[in-house]
Amino acid sequence: MSSEPNLLAELVEALRCLPGVGAKSAQRMAFHLLERDRDGGIRLAAVLDQAMRRIGHCRSCRNFSETDQCAICASSSRDASQVCVVETPADLLAIEQATGYRGRYFVLMGRLSPLDGLGPQELGAELLAGTLATGEVREMVIATNPTVEGEATAHWLGQLARAAGVRATRLAHGVPLGGELEYVDRGTLAHAFGSRQDLGD
Amino acid sequence: MSSEPNLLAELVEALRCLPGVGAKSAQRMAFHLLERDRDGGIRLAAVLDQAMRRIGHCRSCRNFSETDQCAICASSSRDASQVCVVETPADLLAIEQATGYRGRYFVLMGRLSPLDGLGPQELGAELLAGTLATGEVREMVIATNPTVEGEATAHWLGQLARAAGVRATRLAHGVPLGGELEYVDRGTLAHAFGSRQDLGD
Repeated sequence: MSSEPNLLAELVEALRCLPGVGAKSAQRMAFHLLERDRDGGIRLAAVLDQAMRRIGHCRSCRNFSETDQCAICASSSRDASQVCVVETPADLLAIEQATGYRGRYFVLMGRLSPLDGLGPQELGAELLAGTLATGEVREMVIATNPTVEGEATAHWLGQLARAAGVRATRLAHGVPLGGELEYVDRGTLAHAFGSRQDLGD
Repeated sequence: MSSEPNLLAELVEALRCLPGVGAKSAQRMAFHLLERDRDGGIRLAAVLDQAMRRIGHCRSCRNFSETDQCAICASSSRDASQVCVVETPADLLAIEQATGYRGRYFVLMGRLSPLDGLGPQELGAELLAGTLATGEVREMVIATNPTVEGEATAHWLGQLARAAGVRATRLAHGVPLGGELEYVDRGTLAHAFGSRQDLGD
């Protein structure tokens, strides 16, 4: 009706680039911001623009970082003799929040998946091999996901570690704490049963 | 660790201004945009900033509009003899999408709610009375929500219409189409029973 673009419709459409946001939620978000939180919306716009343009990858561990080297890699209080290899930055955050791990990380930004064109090169194999070759690293904690692709990736990482003479460890798999055996999936239960351990004294 | 602000953490925090987005979803959104859709993120930032700054209210109907008058009010193909009064722009959109209504609207941007400081003045009573006083309007379709506050608002709107000599109508309430009587709430069922209508011939 008017030659002016319809900003509201554009905003609703643009919000749909967020994961899990469909037409209805996008509309609700747009109205919420317009009615109740314009300042928040303006702040979000500014931070979002900056983040999209300035966040790159740490040159040491490939994690997201707006500086050349991320805070963890740059920190002298982190133990350089351990490197924990994870698939994604989200996995890194989960480990940081849940555990007392004080070593360094390496973020694959994916998992071995030939069909998606993700091979060792895309996962930073060269950079990781370089880190292992420095001789500083004594343990590689493999924290890939317990999926088929994650297991394949773990296998490949184990070979890398062996080639560099570095000890490779893997997160324990089994029944989750607080889980009820009745509701644990068969694969996990079978694995936990097969990997049963001696009771300590 | 560094004096540089942590952009990623800021982005996650800023995303939480969106309704229904908690810490975990905000993190997922940030990672998704960074890994897969930077262009979408930059576009969203630009549109969001523009929308927050430029979208105001239509001077005739109070709906959101980036122009002085919204497309519906400015359109000559809409029937000025009908005005449908809704609580929110989302209600207006729902009616536009579901019905063939070709009249105009008036958006209260709320409902009578003295506890929240929302009285007739905040809902644009003066503007609405002015519209009714032009003599152009013959029917006011009251489409407030069937809640306690919405009913109070409908009552007040009915009085406004009566004072201006305008016919006031109200959306029908009853059993929703496709609903099963067994699962319809008691209030709705009682209302539908009380408002039963003669079968046409």
